[in-house]
Amino acid sequence: MSKITATYLVHDKKENLHKKAEGIALGLTVGSWTDLPQLEQEQLKKHKGIVEEVIELPEDPRTDQFLGSKRTRGLLKISYPSANFSNDIPAILTTVFGKLSLDGEIKLVDLEFDKNLEQQFPGPKFGITGIRDILGVHNRPLVMSIFKGVLGKDLSFFKQQLYEQALGGVDLVKDDEILFENPLTPFEERVRISKEVLKSVHERTGEKTIYAVNLTGRTSELRDKARRAAELGANALLFNVLSYGPDVLQELAEDKEIPLPIMAHPALSGAIGSSSLYGIGYSVLLGKLLRYAGADLVLFPSPYGSVALDRNETLSIADALTTDSISLNKSFPVPSAGIHPGLTPVLYNDFGLDSVINAGGGIHGHPDGAAGGARSFRQAIDAVVKGEDFESFAEKHAELQKALELWGGVPVK
Amino acid sequence: MSKITATYLVHDKKENLHKKAEGIALGLTVGSWTDLPQLEQEQLKKHKGIVEEVIELPEDPRTDQFLGSKRTRGLLKISYPSANFSNDIPAILTTVFGKLSLDGEIKLVDLEFDKNLEQQFPGPKFGITGIRDILGVHNRPLVMSIFKGVLGKDLSFFKQQLYEQALGGVDLVKDDEILFENPLTPFEERVRISKEVLKSVHERTGEKTIYAVNLTGRTSELRDKARRAAELGANALLFNVLSYGPDVLQELAEDKEIPLPIMAHPALSGAIGSSSLYGIGYSVLLGKLLRYAGADLVLFPSPYGSVALDRNETLSIADALTTDSISLNKSFPVPSAGIHPGLTPVLYNDFGLDSVINAGGGIHGHPDGAAGGARSFRQAIDAVVKGEDFESFAEKHAELQKALELWGGVPVK
Repeated sequence: MSKITATYLVHDKKENLHKKAEGIALGLTVGSWTDLPQLEQEQLKKHKGIVEEVIELPEDPRTDQFLGSKRTRGLLKISYPSANFSNDIPAILTTVFGKLSLDGEIKLVDLEFDKNLEQQFPGPKFGITGIRDILGVHNRPLVMSIFKGVLGKDLSFFKQQLYEQALGGVDLVKDDEILFENPLTPFEERVRISKEVLKSVHERTGEKTIYAVNLTGRTSELRDKARRAAELGANALLFNVLSYGPDVLQELAEDKEIPLPIMAHPALSGAIGSSSLYGIGYSVLLGKLLRYAGADLVLFPSPYGSVALDRNETLSIADALTTDSISLNKSFPVPSAGIHPGLTPVLYNDFGLDSVINAGGGIHGHPDGAAGGARSFRQAIDAVVKGEDFESFAEKHAELQKALELWGGVPVK
Repeated sequence: MSKITATYLVHDKKENLHKKAEGIALGLTVGSWTDLPQLEQEQLKKHKGIVEEVIELPEDPRTDQFLGSKRTRGLLKISYPSANFSNDIPAILTTVFGKLSLDGEIKLVDLEFDKNLEQQFPGPKFGITGIRDILGVHNRPLVMSIFKGVLGKDLSFFKQQLYEQALGGVDLVKDDEILFENPLTPFEERVRISKEVLKSVHERTGEKTIYAVNLTGRTSELRDKARRAAELGANALLFNVLSYGPDVLQELAEDKEIPLPIMAHPALSGAIGSSSLYGIGYSVLLGKLLRYAGADLVLFPSPYGSVALDRNETLSIADALTTDSISLNKSFPVPSAGIHPGLTPVLYNDFGLDSVINAGGGIHGHPDGAAGGARSFRQAIDAVVKGEDFESFAEKHAELQKALELWGGVPVK
């Protein structure tokens, strides 16, 4: 019998976590159990939630004090038969964390799809391998950069900025996620111009660059807009998945007429993932759910920048996106926010070969401009992949050297 | 110039909240300002975010201790020109709380649409007045009940339960939000049978009842499914809006071929609204956003049941749903979860005439069954609307009396 297993972190007012877990397993499925006649129990058995495990955790006086009363901490692992829901993420989320999300201090920290259920989901259309094939780059982390200050600027600005970033050797360039449909840089024009610019860079450098255009607008228009982008020669989509909903992403990923990698932006995710007491853990929210729904790349704050996540949390996101235990294409982890070339050794140490290093200010703020910034990242990546001494390598590579002088280096501990 | 104004509650590591606010206003719009040449400032002026107000709040040692460092608390009010975004909720949320949601201890606690922007949103198609017109009930709070234990049961069970609830005099009956498409009680069959049952109850009692069928499935199929439900004679839809996305609700609300009230369920909302430090305040999440997007009724936990919200928070949700300062139809506030007839006086005191009292166990657990439970609620409402002494009134009304004996009464303080 197929099922999904949810793990909740609770800080409960009552002491008996087993009773709490039983209450959830029944309350979110058949309602009651022991009072039911034998016949009805037989009939409802395949719908009943099961308490798989209850792990009591040590007390946490700091949290008790914050919440104003003593709490029993623990992890409750409960499985729900897939007979109870349709095979879509909205039904799954409503089942495992719908009304339960409102029930005091409870956080959904893991979600395990069994193999039967897993097969109902598309996963990434391209994934890590597919994106590497498009770029022809197989043996190093990729570099990505972000447009900067495009709001209120026109297409000539867009064109120039794209050209410089690509020329310096970034593998991917993404739109700013706050750039929506607008008269100065319309969606279709951005796609048209990007095609032209990236073709000319390819002719000059021999390197390919993927540009991810921000897919925005009303939900029901997204599919046609994405198809139109593909027709016009777009090579990837950026998508603010949590402002729409994971199922909207999945429908784009499943659509055979949208032959484009999708890059999921973590906009809004802090509203759901930040609290240690409530919400949904990032490894589920930005990890598993987005891989199942079909994101080819997933951005998240690295542990090192101005906007940062806890390191273990970022590692758990990356693990969910790339683990072999899920039989779907893998999604590229894209640690982001406040990244400069000096962070490359720690990022490589944390996220390995199959990751994308994504920078905004760390590209555009380089003394030699965006092209120099891009080159400095490529040099930094060369150094770490070849196992060179980072500082000595920088001495022989001017752009990297300038970046390290400006932003410093962060050695692997 | 049209704009949207967001208010954030911050617990910031740095002391200068004005600087923090300026950083947000620029960072989420034009990026930088003082360094820009005069000409570029002119060009970008209409895109620049504006710090409207900064209010410093008293220290909160308990939170400081929880977070492990001293924080500066305050409310930052920042406006964003609507020139920066398209007029849809995903674009607005991405603009005002996209990457910002990830930036430490920050909670979006208010969102003010100006009149120009407001007009871009449909609001409820029916609203409080429209629903009252359908039912022909204008002078009292409505009563709603929820199916109980339908998972694993068949259509005869569904039919019987619907009949009893309606017979007792509830105005609305809703599906359990965890009931998805399934072979035992298929969506279309539920609609067909409800029409039949409610017609026979109407013939018997002269009262109308609205049944809200749970609209579930893949995002792109919802519209056709809702239209089909309308064709088959459905009279309302239940929708787990946060498992899909607010724009999906809005598209259903805007669709002229879906002439049905939409009831928004708060499933998943706890993941976003529960924390005092992060996320989105309930008055925005379940209040303003759902009214703008077009929910005719909005469920939320009352302050009194087993799953409860803070009273002020529930009042702020109800206020957002019904305030005259928004020029759209009003949405019915539906305080829910653990409601029994004894709570009617406090619910009426809190939410007034234009609210819906929603009960599950408080209907089905009545000694005289669901019909008796429904009658007890109608009697309780009669008492409070007529300003009768609640206890004395109960003595003359058997069902109410039995409910009070079972669950007790909660006097207005």
